[in-house]
Amino acid sequence: MGDLNGEFDDSIRERLFCQVCTDDVKKPCKITVVGAGMVGMACSISILLKGIATDMILMDVIDDKLKGELLDLNHGKLFLSNVHIDGGRDYSKTADSKIVIVTAGARQEVGESRLSLVQRNVNIFKHIIPQVAKYSPDTILIVVSNPVDLMTYVAWKLSGFPRHRVIGSGTNLDSARFRHIIADRLAVSPASVHGWIVGEHGDSSVPLWSGVSVSGRTLASLDPKIGKNDGPKGWDKIHSQVVQGAYEVIKLKGYTNWAIGLSCAEIVESILKNKHRVQPVSCFVKGQAGIEKDVCLSLPCVLNASGVGSIVQVDLKEDELEALKKSAALINEVQEGLKW
Amino acid sequence: MGDLNGEFDDSIRERLFCQVCTDDVKKPCKITVVGAGMVGMACSISILLKGIATDMILMDVIDDKLKGELLDLNHGKLFLSNVHIDGGRDYSKTADSKIVIVTAGARQEVGESRLSLVQRNVNIFKHIIPQVAKYSPDTILIVVSNPVDLMTYVAWKLSGFPRHRVIGSGTNLDSARFRHIIADRLAVSPASVHGWIVGEHGDSSVPLWSGVSVSGRTLASLDPKIGKNDGPKGWDKIHSQVVQGAYEVIKLKGYTNWAIGLSCAEIVESILKNKHRVQPVSCFVKGQAGIEKDVCLSLPCVLNASGVGSIVQVDLKEDELEALKKSAALINEVQEGLKW
Amino acid sequence: MGDLNGEFDDSIRERLFCQVCTDDVKKPCKITVVGAGMVGMACSISILLKGIATDMILMDVIDDKLKGELLDLNHGKLFLSNVHIDGGRDYSKTADSKIVIVTAGARQEVGESRLSLVQRNVNIFKHIIPQVAKYSPDTILIVVSNPVDLMTYVAWKLSGFPRHRVIGSGTNLDSARFRHIIADRLAVSPASVHGWIVGEHGDSSVPLWSGVSVSGRTLASLDPKIGKNDGPKGWDKIHSQVVQGAYEVIKLKGYTNWAIGLSCAEIVESILKNKHRVQPVSCFVKGQAGIEKDVCLSLPCVLNASGVGSIVQVDLKEDELEALKKSAALINEVQEGLKW
Amino acid sequence: MGDLNGEFDDSIRERLFCQVCTDDVKKPCKITVVGAGMVGMACSISILLKGIATDMILMDVIDDKLKGELLDLNHGKLFLSNVHIDGGRDYSKTADSKIVIVTAGARQEVGESRLSLVQRNVNIFKHIIPQVAKYSPDTILIVVSNPVDLMTYVAWKLSGFPRHRVIGSGTNLDSARFRHIIADRLAVSPASVHGWIVGEHGDSSVPLWSGVSVSGRTLASLDPKIGKNDGPKGWDKIHSQVVQGAYEVIKLKGYTNWAIGLSCAEIVESILKNKHRVQPVSCFVKGQAGIEKDVCLSLPCVLNASGVGSIVQVDLKEDELEALKKSAALINEVQEGLKW
Repeated sequence: MGDLNGEFDDSIRERLFCQVCTDDVKKPCKITVVGAGMVGMACSISILLKGIATDMILMDVIDDKLKGELLDLNHGKLFLSNVHIDGGRDYSKTADSKIVIVTAGARQEVGESRLSLVQRNVNIFKHIIPQVAKYSPDTILIVVSNPVDLMTYVAWKLSGFPRHRVIGSGTNLDSARFRHIIADRLAVSPASVHGWIVGEHGDSSVPLWSGVSVSGRTLASLDPKIGKNDGPKGWDKIHSQVVQGAYEVIKLKGYTNWAIGLSCAEIVESILKNKHRVQPVSCFVKGQAGIEKDVCLSLPCVLNASGVGSIVQVDLKEDELEALKKSAALINEVQEGLKW
Repeated sequence: MGDLNGEFDDSIRERLFCQVCTDDVKKPCKITVVGAGMVGMACSISILLKGIATDMILMDVIDDKLKGELLDLNHGKLFLSNVHIDGGRDYSKTADSKIVIVTAGARQEVGESRLSLVQRNVNIFKHIIPQVAKYSPDTILIVVSNPVDLMTYVAWKLSGFPRHRVIGSGTNLDSARFRHIIADRLAVSPASVHGWIVGEHGDSSVPLWSGVSVSGRTLASLDPKIGKNDGPKGWDKIHSQVVQGAYEVIKLKGYTNWAIGLSCAEIVESILKNKHRVQPVSCFVKGQAGIEKDVCLSLPCVLNASGVGSIVQVDLKEDELEALKKSAALINEVQEGLKW
Repeated sequence: MGDLNGEFDDSIRERLFCQVCTDDVKKPCKITVVGAGMVGMACSISILLKGIATDMILMDVIDDKLKGELLDLNHGKLFLSNVHIDGGRDYSKTADSKIVIVTAGARQEVGESRLSLVQRNVNIFKHIIPQVAKYSPDTILIVVSNPVDLMTYVAWKLSGFPRHRVIGSGTNLDSARFRHIIADRLAVSPASVHGWIVGEHGDSSVPLWSGVSVSGRTLASLDPKIGKNDGPKGWDKIHSQVVQGAYEVIKLKGYTNWAIGLSCAEIVESILKNKHRVQPVSCFVKGQAGIEKDVCLSLPCVLNASGVGSIVQVDLKEDELEALKKSAALINEVQEGLKW
Repeated sequence: MGDLNGEFDDSIRERLFCQVCTDDVKKPCKITVVGAGMVGMACSISILLKGIATDMILMDVIDDKLKGELLDLNHGKLFLSNVHIDGGRDYSKTADSKIVIVTAGARQEVGESRLSLVQRNVNIFKHIIPQVAKYSPDTILIVVSNPVDLMTYVAWKLSGFPRHRVIGSGTNLDSARFRHIIADRLAVSPASVHGWIVGEHGDSSVPLWSGVSVSGRTLASLDPKIGKNDGPKGWDKIHSQVVQGAYEVIKLKGYTNWAIGLSCAEIVESILKNKHRVQPVSCFVKGQAGIEKDVCLSLPCVLNASGVGSIVQVDLKEDELEALKKSAALINEVQEGLKW
């Protein structure tokens, strides 16, 4: 794109325009996406199409692939309200980002548990996070790389940021899958089904069946055993469908990208627009919901321009509380074994 | 997704809702995308994020890949305003589509000319187009498969549709690239640079330099030789940058998808919303702009709910006219050799 | 606008364009608004800015005012994606509307109860509804005129439409006010506070405090007396703030328009986009929620392209049920006295 | 809204949430609108519905009216993505606004020339502008009050801001009307008709017929006399239709609001999103286009996050240049007589 720089007759520009002020260096809504793989690109296109960024920076270590993606996106700039799109390897390009989304990391293999990925990804984060923090010391980090709760903890530690500025995409997606499956059974919009999955993103996630409701009526009021093994038929399988969802998509197409990209864009929007919207995302939750371990996992959080403004004190049933603690212990166990 | 059908206790639904009318079969804005490859998926996500479809049907012959894409998109339905997303191999699912986008076809190899792809794709279209026409006899076809002008002609012939309902994505993307590159040099939004590339999508496309303008001022008024070999430095290279754009992206990342997806979504929006917006798209243009051949190629067209409402009578310079005729002859020559 | 018709040299158009198909008469998303007063105009601008209509028709009997509004909106068409905007007195202009919104009616005076308006408005509806039904026999009616529950019943009777196609804007707005006030106290987005007001729009509306929740946690789980007279301080005043809301705005600025316009646009969007979203709107509910009277009032409804697809079987506490029945009886009493 | 403050049991909030960081005072996209009359409210609702502001502050001296508007908008907050909406008389509320839109001023009477309003409005601005500048020293001012070019000059002088941060809504609306009328004749979208009106907003505005084009083809290439008295029939009346447009709307409905509100929102969007879009707006143009006077009037400007980044050097025909100079002289003459 800049290939012709220097060989260009810019007098055309000078004759066409009279400059009134020096070219602005303002980047009112600058978003950086680290990792231009399938997930990073799905995040990027979702954010671009939502029209909420003024600057989009993509960082990746695979030069050709990245250059190709940047060129392709720039070719579509006419359709994207003139967002400034750039990127590379040099983190100075990310300076003053409002939000940095980290999608870099090894891709989860077919059948691989999320937890097994972690050490490989720690090493990658040790390269990325300090540079991000250096150039955008006030940014909000959104971690998408898996296993997301562990990587959110790692990013938090490596960044030195206060905990409200390090957010994992967490169970925002699991909850969306949960609501979609229930909504499908009920023939309503997922937006009209309220339901929350908390805890670890993935295998040990905890569905809060007691709070699942449509227009203020809980499904539990229709059948108190809903979602349980001895409850109404089929409904007990929904949570495992949610958990298996990612694995199934990976088995079928090799990776997941669209839903996680859309989920991430939703989190970005809540922050950029200071929405104070409650979404289940991962953050450091020690002291919340009976969790005594040093872990990040997902609880419903109020997202605003500062990041996580507050955490909802969820009302957990005994079995939900147990499941959540187990989730926390599992994560913490892996964490303890990490080499920094 | 439907895996649990039949084993489900649907009395929950029955107890939660009192049905007022039989479930609607209305599909107010149903869009079908044929081909769930990189281009088809980029078209789909762009249309979904624009929020203009109520139903999105993806068709592909690779079952697993398609099922994976459908599952992934459905997982993101909460973020997509409850568009109904489905698909498969059976074209009855596409019935009553308002628009059918055809992206299926062999992918252009590195260095391969667009023209060389054509015969392979004709055979694919002979399978697709008659089925599309059978189930959606009033639909508007948008052809994206390359070489797009030839494939638009092929789709027109195979469909038996009136010409205003068979549209190729054409030089809508080339023009976007052209405007982006000029806009970048001028440090303005591509939306504020007006410029048109007509003729064949790709190699023999024709840039209308004489009409390139910013706020009513043509660049030619600043330098009449702009865009020509002996004109201002660098500007003469812009058209070849546009033409090479696709090849370069393919070389770098293996395929193009985002810009063509966005371009296609823009065309869809003009049609669905009956915008009467002028865009350069490919359609059967015999009798226009001095073209006597039986070909489809791109000229500025008024797009509305009927498809191509009218074609702008462009004012071509002699060399532009010659280039356009050459473009038409090249396309027609390949066409003559096609085996139907 | 059409002032120069007939005196215009249209050969410019003929020389600029080559027509490909006869000008389309398609109106994919045609919306009619009856009544170009403050409420009608707020509905119109909200719908226009949401970009969901292709045709917007305004009907009013005050010619000058209407012509002024049409001209003003048309002057902004560049900023409104070329929606076709027209109107007048002659209902043939409304033909084939997807949705007809009726805002016409006498304006509620300061301090006037909604119920006292009704007979005046019945006479107005006898002029409007039959003409609407004649030109758009398949349309969906949205009644905004007050007292909205009574007028929805009147519109239903006068139209002869099935009940799922006659919808009153109902407590969609009351619920929005309710959620806003609670959200404000909690410093979260109203979108994250789920709460429903059912029954009559206005004075005798019924807040369902038991179902008010944030991320699956009911406020009642924090204090079972919330919203009650002997409950936590201030919260018991919220419902009366909601009820007084409209009166207060009328007292301060003379009328309400923005919130009702936005509320109505939300209902329109659910229908046009076939969202299956649950919203509290007014419709004929005899047989629902213990209501034995022939009345329209608001319950949570699934809105889709057919109108009201189904009604949620709300789980009412005894006092809520009583209040709802009282609401129904009040409405029915007025209804009985109506002169048709 | 805050009526119940102090009497509220906020322990509900404390039990529901665990605060993670102190409540943010960030106002990423704060917009102030001065003047809550018809124009100010149309600006506000247009900006709110575009979803581009995080904070909207309305200032007015008529307390009841303002309080009513604020309450009404807040009631619709659920439908507006939780924008923070507030206002009053005290300018400290406007602190750190990104953009301040000034619509305050005496309303233009039927038949009154824009120029006659000016002195009354100068006195109003002497109250407003210094306070705006005090609380938001880095803001960008958008002046909408009429006569807009004079008032832009006044605001510039009173603010002491650099000229790129004082912008009048200018002929952005005149150009929209111009493009709408031409587009209507040509049966295309106004977005596809490129045409510019420069100079004074209103009576002495200058239409640049030579640059009016559709897809790169100028209408002048079809008939060089287009727009002139001896040109094609009807087209010569278009400019006076544009000029009379505002007067006609005022005559019919008493005021104009929708189109100016939409026009203003478009300018706001270009700035907030750093679009570098070219729009005709008013700013201090001495030294441009042959203008030697100390005046503000409209020329095509590149709008970005700094305000007016540069001005397009338009290519004026002799008569256009003369008309523009006359426009400048007229404005300057009034300006000279102003009492500061």
